[in-house]
Amino acid sequence: MKKNIEPCYYGDYLALDKILGAQKLQSTKYGEPAHEEMLFIVVHQVYELWFKQLLHELNAVIDTFNQAAVKDQQLTSVVHRLHRVIQIQKLMNDQIGIMETMTPQQFLSFRDYLVPASGFQSIQFKQLEISLGLKREYRIDFDKQSFYNRLSDDDRSLLEALEEKPSLFELVDKWLARMPLLKTEDFHFWDYYRKATDEMLNDDKETIERNAFLSEVERRQELKDWQSTRENFDGLFNHETYEDLLNQGKFRLSHEALLSALFIKQYSEEPVFNLPFQLITALTEIDEQLTLWRYRHAMMVQRMLGTKIGTGGSSGHHYLKKTTESNRIFLDFFNMATFLLPKSSLPELPESVKRRLGFYLQ
Amino acid sequence: MKKNIEPCYYGDYLALDKILGAQKLQSTKYGEPAHEEMLFIVVHQVYELWFKQLLHELNAVIDTFNQAAVKDQQLTSVVHRLHRVIQIQKLMNDQIGIMETMTPQQFLSFRDYLVPASGFQSIQFKQLEISLGLKREYRIDFDKQSFYNRLSDDDRSLLEALEEKPSLFELVDKWLARMPLLKTEDFHFWDYYRKATDEMLNDDKETIERNAFLSEVERRQELKDWQSTRENFDGLFNHETYEDLLNQGKFRLSHEALLSALFIKQYSEEPVFNLPFQLITALTEIDEQLTLWRYRHAMMVQRMLGTKIGTGGSSGHHYLKKTTESNRIFLDFFNMATFLLPKSSLPELPESVKRRLGFYLQ
Amino acid sequence: MKKNIEPCYYGDYLALDKILGAQKLQSTKYGEPAHEEMLFIVVHQVYELWFKQLLHELNAVIDTFNQAAVKDQQLTSVVHRLHRVIQIQKLMNDQIGIMETMTPQQFLSFRDYLVPASGFQSIQFKQLEISLGLKREYRIDFDKQSFYNRLSDDDRSLLEALEEKPSLFELVDKWLARMPLLKTEDFHFWDYYRKATDEMLNDDKETIERNAFLSEVERRQELKDWQSTRENFDGLFNHETYEDLLNQGKFRLSHEALLSALFIKQYSEEPVFNLPFQLITALTEIDEQLTLWRYRHAMMVQRMLGTKIGTGGSSGHHYLKKTTESNRIFLDFFNMATFLLPKSSLPELPESVKRRLGFYLQ
Amino acid sequence: MKKNIEPCYYGDYLALDKILGAQKLQSTKYGEPAHEEMLFIVVHQVYELWFKQLLHELNAVIDTFNQAAVKDQQLTSVVHRLHRVIQIQKLMNDQIGIMETMTPQQFLSFRDYLVPASGFQSIQFKQLEISLGLKREYRIDFDKQSFYNRLSDDDRSLLEALEEKPSLFELVDKWLARMPLLKTEDFHFWDYYRKATDEMLNDDKETIERNAFLSEVERRQELKDWQSTRENFDGLFNHETYEDLLNQGKFRLSHEALLSALFIKQYSEEPVFNLPFQLITALTEIDEQLTLWRYRHAMMVQRMLGTKIGTGGSSGHHYLKKTTESNRIFLDFFNMATFLLPKSSLPELPESVKRRLGFYLQ
Repeated sequence: MKKNIEPCYYGDYLALDKILGAQKLQSTKYGEPAHEEMLFIVVHQVYELWFKQLLHELNAVIDTFNQAAVKDQQLTSVVHRLHRVIQIQKLMNDQIGIMETMTPQQFLSFRDYLVPASGFQSIQFKQLEISLGLKREYRIDFDKQSFYNRLSDDDRSLLEALEEKPSLFELVDKWLARMPLLKTEDFHFWDYYRKATDEMLNDDKETIERNAFLSEVERRQELKDWQSTRENFDGLFNHETYEDLLNQGKFRLSHEALLSALFIKQYSEEPVFNLPFQLITALTEIDEQLTLWRYRHAMMVQRMLGTKIGTGGSSGHHYLKKTTESNRIFLDFFNMATFLLPKSSLPELPESVKRRLGFYLQ
Repeated sequence: MKKNIEPCYYGDYLALDKILGAQKLQSTKYGEPAHEEMLFIVVHQVYELWFKQLLHELNAVIDTFNQAAVKDQQLTSVVHRLHRVIQIQKLMNDQIGIMETMTPQQFLSFRDYLVPASGFQSIQFKQLEISLGLKREYRIDFDKQSFYNRLSDDDRSLLEALEEKPSLFELVDKWLARMPLLKTEDFHFWDYYRKATDEMLNDDKETIERNAFLSEVERRQELKDWQSTRENFDGLFNHETYEDLLNQGKFRLSHEALLSALFIKQYSEEPVFNLPFQLITALTEIDEQLTLWRYRHAMMVQRMLGTKIGTGGSSGHHYLKKTTESNRIFLDFFNMATFLLPKSSLPELPESVKRRLGFYLQ
Repeated sequence: MKKNIEPCYYGDYLALDKILGAQKLQSTKYGEPAHEEMLFIVVHQVYELWFKQLLHELNAVIDTFNQAAVKDQQLTSVVHRLHRVIQIQKLMNDQIGIMETMTPQQFLSFRDYLVPASGFQSIQFKQLEISLGLKREYRIDFDKQSFYNRLSDDDRSLLEALEEKPSLFELVDKWLARMPLLKTEDFHFWDYYRKATDEMLNDDKETIERNAFLSEVERRQELKDWQSTRENFDGLFNHETYEDLLNQGKFRLSHEALLSALFIKQYSEEPVFNLPFQLITALTEIDEQLTLWRYRHAMMVQRMLGTKIGTGGSSGHHYLKKTTESNRIFLDFFNMATFLLPKSSLPELPESVKRRLGFYLQ
Repeated sequence: MKKNIEPCYYGDYLALDKILGAQKLQSTKYGEPAHEEMLFIVVHQVYELWFKQLLHELNAVIDTFNQAAVKDQQLTSVVHRLHRVIQIQKLMNDQIGIMETMTPQQFLSFRDYLVPASGFQSIQFKQLEISLGLKREYRIDFDKQSFYNRLSDDDRSLLEALEEKPSLFELVDKWLARMPLLKTEDFHFWDYYRKATDEMLNDDKETIERNAFLSEVERRQELKDWQSTRENFDGLFNHETYEDLLNQGKFRLSHEALLSALFIKQYSEEPVFNLPFQLITALTEIDEQLTLWRYRHAMMVQRMLGTKIGTGGSSGHHYLKKTTESNRIFLDFFNMATFLLPKSSLPELPESVKRRLGFYLQ
């Protein structure tokens, strides 16, 4: 035990006087105590505590990537922290079931006292979105307005300052784009890859054309989708095409970052790619869990209010459903399967490359 | 112990020779064994076993409602069975995480051997949807075609026969519509209710109009939504209006059934309404879990294939996302919060009514 | 919307300044910030918030049972609240996985600053145990001492006062014991039951004696267990025998309460027993979840510390494992399966009884 | 798409005729169909399917370790597979909740038809235990007898043959023991470590002695526990002492393996240790989940049968509780926290060592 440590007691350490004294029921204040308001408050306070923890982890990860160079040892802890983020997100998703033990009628018994409070006013949630990479330009129009109108001046400044800082998305994009491997290598991976994917796409087209189950309407739709996939592939091999697609919103990652990520995913079993692969997978999962949270949240609000307006004076579930898909951040990782080849179609890495991807020791 | 019972052994009882001998890897057949194909098969087989169990429960519930009269004792077991359905659904939703331990690249190593198999060919899943109430007329157009084109003749006949039978939705609708209470009572609940809801709606409108946070665009949208809610309320009090809304697809339940359900939800603490309330809540939950399953399933397919076509020769995740919301069955229960009043705005039930809603014994 | 309601804002409503300002890291105070201490604090604060919510629900349930008579309408809400308790418990159990994302080495980086804080000092957890029914006389010896030694004077007074009040266990016991049905009925259920269970027990004995798989040691053990089950059955039919078994700690429920609970479980499909059956099942589940929590908690502490002493200066996981089984409260409900008969061996209830168990209305 | 691939249909591919035709209810055979027997069968069949998948993963991992040398690339896939095992185990644990939707009374309606079937007859579960490392010598006495008596000749031969093969425990032990690092290094880690742990232990002793909350009985117990921890530490530094402790059952890993594991855990952030650390953590988690499964399973059996004997003719839950703790396999990893030092007490690795632990590339 270290010397000169003052005794530390459970209740003081956790500041339980603050934590457990922070539930002031509005319904009690107005003389009509509603039993379920306690649940409503506690559930939201727990969410805010988890948000605080998520921000604690994300900020540490951002700080790591915000350095001149990321050391190998640090990547271990980055992945560890992102895995913790995911586990907390899963718990937060399950927590929606707790809120749903409140019936709509029970909610109505205190809803009128809460005007105009609204979950959209959670600054920490906005910090989370912005830190991950959901900056103003990516918000849907409706969202943009609601978002800034509802803020206090202090909060608006805080968030605007945060928007100026590099987000995790931007930092990871740069880190991937900088990966030295692809540029120094004289192994012609991308030529090989191009040939193999051309073949794969042609096979897919043939499958659609021969598929007896499809109606003509469906076939046309499928071929149109195929055409768009074809164009995305063209972007991989042509920087200008890629920039066009980027401007159209078909991609968010830079061209270099996308290629690095693709290479890592293709050769993920190489030891040197193990941590980067885990990083990409974790970010994909974080995005998926956040999407799921929005979706379940929207359903819960609908179940609680139907088409009634919420306490913030707008019908929350429409808004929430709209943002479910539009606010995705690492969607390029999520969609990356589009571009993957099966192991058997990939060229074996030359020995010289392999050696550079392994550990020195063994 | 009963006499004359032959001994029963674990392996025989569970037919483990069949169950554990039913994993034939296509990749092995073609000489390129893919480790993850086992997972793919086992996960799907487990889903089919759960589907069988869900059908076992649903069919029992349907049989109960398909009688001249439903006895009180039977309602207990209906609710018990529906709660089991929900718990299985939750497990099935979590099971998607198991499939996601397969990387897209691992899937690619055997995907080509599976053409044209597709999860859309699960007859049991279609039986489930039809038994719940998703009949042909409610399927989206795209779905209708895919659905019937892909079936074998036997399966098509089986499903078409099932469509002729009453679904759980139809049976519950009739059961609710027949509930005697509302018709025999001379307690003027609906007059009272109308007055109270008018007030609530006017308050909501005022809130929208006074909400300083809304932009003009948002306010117009909110008022439009409010107007549509207003019209739905009008339907409650006017049978013709209701029929119009029903034809427009704004409701699916019959007018009488909706009113009964609403009454039950408003007075759910009355003992006689306890089981009916649990029934409605359970059906709402089943619908929510099914919706969640579709949504998570769609995300999983997207993560596995990106925008590539699936083994069935079409891009599954578009289709799946489209059906996520459109294939909802008990949506009226889900949206019922729209019409609920807080307890404090409800008239106290007259003693005579209360007595009839309580138990004789106490 | 109600008039004269002051505006209520999200951050103020949830007292986020208190909640989010309550994380003071000891490691920071001593100049060696440990990243994971934030997780440690937040996880414990979330637990304390859930404890507060559980106490809120349990106290409301206790108040209901603490009245002269429990109305039917109130039973609905009792069951609703206990179901919420269970769902929160399940989330709390899953939350242990979050703590386990902290490695033992990470914990070591701040453990020394926490002496002598200890989870055993959570007053709310003790309130929970006492409110449920874990009073001093049921604690194991080791527990008794640790329990009271570590408390501040105020906390000791608070808990001692709570021990004087009736617990949920005691109130439910009384409520069950008072159930009128069994005493007024001239239907000789228990005679019938005695005959049927004698037969069942004799069958079981025969099965043990004929079981070719058992070694002699095992057979002796099984017959000894059977004998003890036989004695418990005798207690059902003889008040004095029951009192003896109660004094030996084989039962905790009063004789009358146990018989009522057994009758309810046997005829649970009768509408009048639906809510009481749900109540008993919910209390069983609460006990199971609490047991699971202790067990997982003990494993987590062992994983974090091995056989090292904890910050409270004792090796927590030994203590926790000891209390896992010994601190069970509603164990009689859990073990009740011992006494159940299959439906087919039960007498049909006479019409006169059935009518009294149904609803008047139908 | 590959050429010459025959079409593959969903139902055929999954052998649904076998899978869905494998539910033969005993209660139906004897003319008294019990609704819940379907659930009982399906739940067990799903468990057996998951067991098959777990064996598929474990056998692949065992094959990898059973080679002359484990390549880095292979370690990636070992960890990936073990993570999948854990996720399946978590689902299996949650699945116990499904079985618990069957009430004890419902189970009684078909229990008598199942004699003498018993879950203990699951060969796959035994294969799993043996493959992980639970060989005959580690089974508790009671278990040993039941285990072999109940088997058919074929199954006994199969399991006895499996016992001759190296288990995952043995293979991982050897792999750890062979790790070159510790032997070739002239960096005197263990001298340093010894000094630091001596200090830590003395501090702990002082904490116990000064802890005012402990009664004298408790203090004696704590000091006895401390003494035993002290002896375990001595084992680390003295091969003979270690062998003694091994023979007493205090350790299961070989001395060399334990030291390697400890070094890996202490310096887990080094890139070369990332995968080994993940491996150790995954095995710890597998053991924890298996333990949890036994515990929840024992509780479920108790809830279903009370102290009644099971269909196998013995009281299952006693047996199950006994094996919960005794059948642990990777307990040394679980307890390893005992020996860990905080990062701040560890010597910085010399540059020469660090370089060998990093990647060549960067």
